[in-house]
Amino acid sequence: MTLELPSIPAFDRPALAARLAQVLDNKTKPVGALGRLEALAARLGLILGSEAPRLESPCMVVCAADHGLAARGVSAYPSDVTWQMVENFLAGGAAVSVLARQHGLALTVVDCGVRHDFAPRDGLVDRKIAAGTADSSAGMAMSRAQCEQAIANGMALVRDLPGNALLLGEMGIGNSSAASMLLARLAAIDIDDCTGAGTGLDAAGLARKRALLRQVLERHAQASAPLDALAAFGGFEIATLVGVVLQAAHESRVIVLDGFIASAAVLVAQALRPQVLERCVAAHESAEPGHRLLLSHLQLEPLLRLDLRLGEGSGAALAWPLLESACRILREMASFESAGVARKDSPEPAP
Amino acid sequence: MTLELPSIPAFDRPALAARLAQVLDNKTKPVGALGRLEALAARLGLILGSEAPRLESPCMVVCAADHGLAARGVSAYPSDVTWQMVENFLAGGAAVSVLARQHGLALTVVDCGVRHDFAPRDGLVDRKIAAGTADSSAGMAMSRAQCEQAIANGMALVRDLPGNALLLGEMGIGNSSAASMLLARLAAIDIDDCTGAGTGLDAAGLARKRALLRQVLERHAQASAPLDALAAFGGFEIATLVGVVLQAAHESRVIVLDGFIASAAVLVAQALRPQVLERCVAAHESAEPGHRLLLSHLQLEPLLRLDLRLGEGSGAALAWPLLESACRILREMASFESAGVARKDSPEPAP
Repeated sequence: MTLELPSIPAFDRPALAARLAQVLDNKTKPVGALGRLEALAARLGLILGSEAPRLESPCMVVCAADHGLAARGVSAYPSDVTWQMVENFLAGGAAVSVLARQHGLALTVVDCGVRHDFAPRDGLVDRKIAAGTADSSAGMAMSRAQCEQAIANGMALVRDLPGNALLLGEMGIGNSSAASMLLARLAAIDIDDCTGAGTGLDAAGLARKRALLRQVLERHAQASAPLDALAAFGGFEIATLVGVVLQAAHESRVIVLDGFIASAAVLVAQALRPQVLERCVAAHESAEPGHRLLLSHLQLEPLLRLDLRLGEGSGAALAWPLLESACRILREMASFESAGVARKDSPEPAP
Repeated sequence: MTLELPSIPAFDRPALAARLAQVLDNKTKPVGALGRLEALAARLGLILGSEAPRLESPCMVVCAADHGLAARGVSAYPSDVTWQMVENFLAGGAAVSVLARQHGLALTVVDCGVRHDFAPRDGLVDRKIAAGTADSSAGMAMSRAQCEQAIANGMALVRDLPGNALLLGEMGIGNSSAASMLLARLAAIDIDDCTGAGTGLDAAGLARKRALLRQVLERHAQASAPLDALAAFGGFEIATLVGVVLQAAHESRVIVLDGFIASAAVLVAQALRPQVLERCVAAHESAEPGHRLLLSHLQLEPLLRLDLRLGEGSGAALAWPLLESACRILREMASFESAGVARKDSPEPAP
């Protein structure tokens, strides 16, 4: 196959941006008093093309896959946890299940390449490329064809989903290694700075992980173009999320990042189509040290800093009510005129 | 009257604390991976005395009053904005109205001393002490009897409210000045560091505000006990909130702080009864510079940092879903055992 990436027009709505600023300044509050919620409201208004934006049918898309590199001991957990957690998502017992239920987010779990045969059921979408990627320390994690198929799968997934907002989630034992290597390669940052304890390595485990990832990066020294790096380091869930991000941006949906791994998919997507970033909202900054560097590289300011390091989409779900609030501020708050409230700079004279 | 302050027992629930830690560690996630949400869950469990806490009938209490000192030009807005905003709260058009509606928070607006005669109506509680405090630059903002009456009013208010959680809100042109002076006096911090632009003073206005507040502090140099300082600097809404906080802590309700002024009420309350702090959750850190110092003095870590500087209870309302999430994590997440997920430290062997 030859993958055709969607076009994503740059924002060119100066009139709408000016109107949004004016609407916000006329709300019954001092100018700027709602701080970053106002910037968020303006961004959501621009993405959705409205002074009174409304988030509709938000979908949490959790992409799951296994990683061949996990056999090299880069995670504190065994690979079987990937499929076990997929079952937990579907049974409603995982953090992202609980939080999605709280906020009315439709949860879609996508098997992008889990090393397990799932029985078909509601809420689980089969887009399995293979039973886990190959070991990237021994060769490419995936072929170029597999990589393009996963991206195409992500694009097709979005076309089938309702609404105008997507929250990105993921599951895959070993996938913080793939995210670290993508960050190191695409943002030119030393791998030691990009690498953290993931789900909970100890100091010795972290040192081994860093040394191994440095070797893998050296092995794939030529993989510098975005899709080459993605194919070299994996994984299938990240590649599928790249497609999700590209298609969502093409349709001008709101894209809510989660933690390090979901953000790594955005890193790849924006390397292909920089305009995706204008449709993105960074939900939180995780405790995984590479995430701060990644968001800083993308110039995205996270809404929450709660030292989360879980993934799944949990941080995106936790931040979701702030997006709802931002839209409601625009839609429902009174203006000085409508409420009959006096403006600034009519102070009482000093005696 | 002689005010009788309620007793507030110190937490003494080591068995519950240990069980909460164990329940959280057994949830299907790496230990600690939900970061500060886990600490919040443990605190809410302790306050509500349950391993499966449930927040019930949360009430947003917005206390409003005017300040005599406002006539000296300490705010960018005229005092009439206090009553106009009370009308806006009741009409549903203010930020706190919108956010309370979003999150199902029952909104109670309390006239603690607004310089305006309101027509009675649903949602407005008349606990007016006087039509604004006296000018604290010329004498005490309120008498000791008024101060105690306002605190008693706050205590009585809580006894009439349902549920197990209160969110603190306030409105009062000039009240950031009172909060700054309370912080300076009760935490022994220089007034310049405690004083910010409030609703939006320019640099010259801020310099005048600082100089005036320094004079007022000197005038009331003897007002060092908590209730003496409260009576000297005001205001009626802060004193009423002190009563709200004391009674809510006595009943072991969850108390959600908002911004600088609501937090100043907690500062006074904990100076009277230190155990109130164990029932408090700091919703956010505002852009008003004194708020960071105040929260640091109370050793409370805010959930959000969104550069808000509005008050009203808006920050408390924005943080509310995180409290709900923390309780749901305890109540609804599966354990490793119940979900059949493998634990850490059973990694695959390195080849």
